Amino acid sequence: MDALENKTYDEISIGDQCNYQKTLTESDLILFATVSGDVNPVHLDPNFAEASMFKERIAHGMWSGSLVSATLATVMPGPGTIYLNQSFNFLRPVKLGDVLTVTLTAKQKDDEKNTVIFDCNVVNQNQKSVLTGKAKVIAPNEKIIIKRPALPVVSISDVLESDVA
Amino acid sequence: MDALENKTYDEISIGDQCNYQKTLTESDLILFATVSGDVNPVHLDPNFAEASMFKERIAHGMWSGSLVSATLATVMPGPGTIYLNQSFNFLRPVKLGDVLTVTLTAKQKDDEKNTVIFDCNVVNQNQKSVLTGKAKVIAPNEKIIIKRPALPVVSISDVLESDVA
Repeated sequence: MDALENKTYDEISIGDQCNYQKTLTESDLILFATVSGDVNPVHLDPNFAEASMFKERIAHGMWSGSLVSATLATVMPGPGTIYLNQSFNFLRPVKLGDVLTVTLTAKQKDDEKNTVIFDCNVVNQNQKSVLTGKAKVIAPNEKIIIKRPALPVVSISDVLESDVA
Repeated sequence: MDALENKTYDEISIGDQCNYQKTLTESDLILFATVSGDVNPVHLDPNFAEASMFKERIAHGMWSGSLVSATLATVMPGPGTIYLNQSFNFLRPVKLGDVLTVTLTAKQKDDEKNTVIFDCNVVNQNQKSVLTGKAKVIAPNEKIIIKRPALPVVSISDVLESDVA
């Protein structure tokens, strides 16, 4: 079984680390624009992006942020986590084919409130930080081991939304 | 023409506000899980969510965050904005059909660096804050008015990824 298993508050020690990796694809640019409504052409239009300071299409900064959130929600602490706060510093653009690795490091625990503060660092395939920040969560008390939910197939058509509206 | 027009650094005054609105749909839950990899079942599995403290499926917190980023990138300042930092406080769950309204308020400008700090507030249809935070960006110098990029049609199949892998 491909499982999701959380780490409870008691199982997390200061200094514990975890990782999560994802590669930026063209589909990610389109899906993130669709789900957020952020159609800024620097993410979508190759010609506009080429004329920009970035020279090519770049990821939405918050896409890299969403990988941090995915790591908290599925790796450590995982299912049962309650998200309280997050800060992000956007440091470098992320381009198509870039392989991002999220590292979370447990920095602080509060036994009264079951909160954990994590340092968050996202690096590209050249080990350069593209995003740093801090996350504060309530870690779960209860152990959860569940089957990883399967996602439906998502497909992106050649037809534009504006042509079918 | 459905246009994207930015507000340059000089056009933004302290106290200026803008809005952006989006309603949470089931597609948003699936697309955000797909693009981030956050398959936490509280967003995807009605039965798991029903047994949770939330009683039903909720949005990824970072989906609400992505609406803040979409507002910065497409409304104010809009195209040409460089994202520096963002903080989020997650205050309330967001449920299917909830109508979120993002309000950005310009709070501080730095004429040497062209940076603007915005207060960010996201409320639901009951005027309850679901997310607050601060954003720091470099606002564009140059006026940009461009056609809003059209997105391709994205469709979600009945078939699971795991069945075609």
